[in-house]
This record gives sequence, C-alpha cells and structure tokens, in this order.
Amino acid sequence: MEDNNKTTNEQKIEGRNSVLEAFRSGQTVDKVFILDGCQDGPVRTIVREAKKHDTLIQFVKKERLDQLSETGTHQGVIAMIAAYEYAEVEDILEKAREKGEDPFIFILDNIEDPHNLGAIIRTANLCGAHGVIIPKRRAVGLTATVARTSAGAINYTPVAKVTNISNTIKDLKKEGMWFVCADMGGDTMYNLNLKGPIGLVIGSEGEGVGKLVKENCDMIASIPMMGDIDSLNASVAAGVLGYEIVRQRLQK
Amino acid sequence: MEDNNKTTNEQKIEGRNSVLEAFRSGQTVDKVFILDGCQDGPVRTIVREAKKHDTLIQFVKKERLDQLSETGTHQGVIAMIAAYEYAEVEDILEKAREKGEDPFIFILDNIEDPHNLGAIIRTANLCGAHGVIIPKRRAVGLTATVARTSAGAINYTPVAKVTNISNTIKDLKKEGMWFVCADMGGDTMYNLNLKGPIGLVIGSEGEGVGKLVKENCDMIASIPMMGDIDSLNASVAAGVLGYEIVRQRLQK
Repeated sequence: MEDNNKTTNEQKIEGRNSVLEAFRSGQTVDKVFILDGCQDGPVRTIVREAKKHDTLIQFVKKERLDQLSETGTHQGVIAMIAAYEYAEVEDILEKAREKGEDPFIFILDNIEDPHNLGAIIRTANLCGAHGVIIPKRRAVGLTATVARTSAGAINYTPVAKVTNISNTIKDLKKEGMWFVCADMGGDTMYNLNLKGPIGLVIGSEGEGVGKLVKENCDMIASIPMMGDIDSLNASVAAGVLGYEIVRQRLQK
Repeated sequence: MEDNNKTTNEQKIEGRNSVLEAFRSGQTVDKVFILDGCQDGPVRTIVREAKKHDTLIQFVKKERLDQLSETGTHQGVIAMIAAYEYAEVEDILEKAREKGEDPFIFILDNIEDPHNLGAIIRTANLCGAHGVIIPKRRAVGLTATVARTSAGAINYTPVAKVTNISNTIKDLKKEGMWFVCADMGGDTMYNLNLKGPIGLVIGSEGEGVGKLVKENCDMIASIPMMGDIDSLNASVAAGVLGYEIVRQRLQK
C-alpha cells in the first residue's frame, strides 16, 4: 500500500466555479456551506454533485458565509476540503495482509469532536490497528485539528470514509471479520473473546452506537463502570477497549 | 467525608484589597498575576501571602493585566480562584476506608491541558478510584473547563492539591500504598501485580513523569506500543492503565 494520508493543508474553497471544479477533479470535500434559499442553476448543480459524493450540505445564512469566507467572494458557496487524503477499506485490509496479521480495525460511528477523532487515530496506531473507518455523513472528517491531535498517527494509519457503516460491517463480515461494539448492558469486555480478525465499533459522544450498527455487531462489550457518572470520554473508551484487544492478542 | 467539591463559579478577583482578602479568608487561589516591577507595600504583602500558600505567581506586563481584567480596576493584581474546592489527601484515604476498599488514587505529575485533567477525573471516577492528587505548581487547577470536561465527576471524586508530589508519595507509602508510574521502558503493565492499595502516577503531556517522582515509585508500567508514533494522549494512557488496575482488582 502507498502512504494514503499525504499531508496537504486544510483548505476552504470559495465561489461556485471553484467548488464545482473541486468536486469534478475528485478532491475530497468534507462539507459544503450553501446560502439558504439560493436556487439558481450553478448552485443546484453543486447540490447535485454534493449529493452524488455523499458530502454533507449545510444551508446557512449570508452572515455565516461572510464569517467563514477568507476571500470575501464566496458567491453563496464555500467547500471544506479534507486536510488529509482518505484511504479505501481495501487498503486497510491490505495493510493487515502485508503484516501477516488478523485485521484489526477501529470503526467510529459518528464521532463529532475533532480532538476525539485525532486521539482515537493516535490510539489505533499504537494498538497496532490497521486502520480507522468513519462515516461520510455527520461525523467530523480529517481536518487540521484532527491531524494535530493525532500526533502524527494520521501519516501512518489509513482512515477510510464510507457511506454506510452497517453495510461496510456486513461486507467485512463476509471476509471473516468479527465486530464488537462498545455499549452499556453488554458483556464485560474481559469475559469476551476478542482475538482474531476484529472490528471495534465506537459510538458517538452523545448517543453511543446507532441501533442498526449495533444489530450488525456480533458482540457488545461493556467497560466496567465502578463510579457515579455515566460514561467515559469517547477517546478514553476507545483506548480502554482497544487495549483489551491488545491484551488478548498478546496472550499465547 | 463531606462532599468536598462544592460547585462555585470560576472567578477572577481584582484589586489589592480583594486579592489579599481572598488569601486571608482561605479561598483557594490557583494563580495570581502581578504587575511586573511593582514593589510597593500592598503588592509585597500579596506576594508574601501567595508564597505562604504555594500559589503560582506570574509577573506580567500591564497590557496582559488589562486584557485579563473584567472590572478595569485591577490595580496591578488579579487572582484566579478555583472553580471547585479542593479536598485533602486524608479525605481520599477516608473515602477508601468508608467503602472498605484498598485505596486507589490517581496522581497527576503536571498535567497542563484542562481537557486532559477533566477527562482523567472522569476516568478516575469510573475506575472506582477514591481520588485524584495534583501538584500546586505549574499544573492546571480545577477550572470551569476541567469541571465541564469531567462530565460531573468532579462532584464525586475528591481532588487534592499538594505542594510536593514526591513527598506525598513518600507519606502514602508509610500508609502501605504502592506506586506505579506510567513510562516507557518499564515492565509491560499486564505482567505487573497492580492489586492492593495503589497510586497510579501519570506524567505531563510533554515530559512524562519527573525524575524524582519516578525514583519514588515502586514500579514502572509500560503500555505496549505496537505502532509508529511515540505515545498515547495523557488521558487515554491514564484510562488504559487505570482499567488494567480495574481488571486485576476484579480477579478473584
């Protein structure tokens, strides 16, 4: 596999032609801001392109666009370009094959905080995971903040963006992978067999793992909660579960 | 033990008399900003009080004070008051006795990022630890950001602030506690016996655990690093090690 996460700068692209060109040239647009109520031809074309690429569209007021704009000539459209290039899921599996290891993948179901995403990519790298999968919609993408918080891990650990997490899980099950999601009310993680080819599914900060995603998992792992409050920070939970997998993998 | 972390608002106190009054009435001043070069009687008295209470003193230019000031009448002195009240180390030990458990304490050697401190207090709570110890100097205190990031844990888990972490470790060893610090080049955490009355020492984000503190620890625990980069985020490392202690404590 090539190094899939080449460094580029986080970038805003402003103006109708530039944004359209970004889509057509295959750049990964994380999100596009469009002037609310704007319905003319070029804007409709951009909305169509955005939908085709499953890009998050956010309709906003003129004040918000003016605030975001660096050039002052946004023409009602600003696109946020990924700071890093995404890998494909196949690249992640290939990385495991190259190392002669059972695949170990972190799947993040709508992590919204860039600091959490960065910290989880960092953790995934140090756990020896072969990659991270994130959803195209709603979740945060590979922004400059994520890159910084990953402490360089983004340069080594491939991150793939998929349209539908549940479908990706189904596909990977056919390749022989098992999936465990982190949630309350499951089996205590120490009592589960987490060896072999495994995907660790971590839910969003507020809502946890989505219902459909959970139904597609083979196991639900719970971290013992001995205290007074509800839940760990998402990146801490990912670390605790990730290292339980490491512990079991290290056992002969 | 009373609930030691009563909620109060994070507060700036400005002006010579108000700051002096804050010290004399026993409020926990996290930090005092003093106009650089200012040597008159009242300011010297404040410096003396600050030193007596081991409060961090920062000498700054007038511009910085003007920027910090909310009242516009700082008179060369602004004090930052803790958002939450600190507990005593004895309160933490008492909490363990009440629950009939071996003491389990997180000791943070100069964590500087309030998000990390908050996340670690949250983790300490859910690990069933009886409290958190932080140093008076240099490290971040119990600010409003820390409180928010702790997700409410600050209301349950006592946090004590001590003058010298090494001396506190020595004192607690006399009470029969063992100390393990997180560092590279130690024994893999899975191979250490982390049961019994234990203090888990976590170093600062940049520099890890200080030399003197490390020398006072009984064990050095390393998290297996299977990746390409150097280290985990401090709050993730605290979670991974904290839960290795939980795992061992849960074993019969």
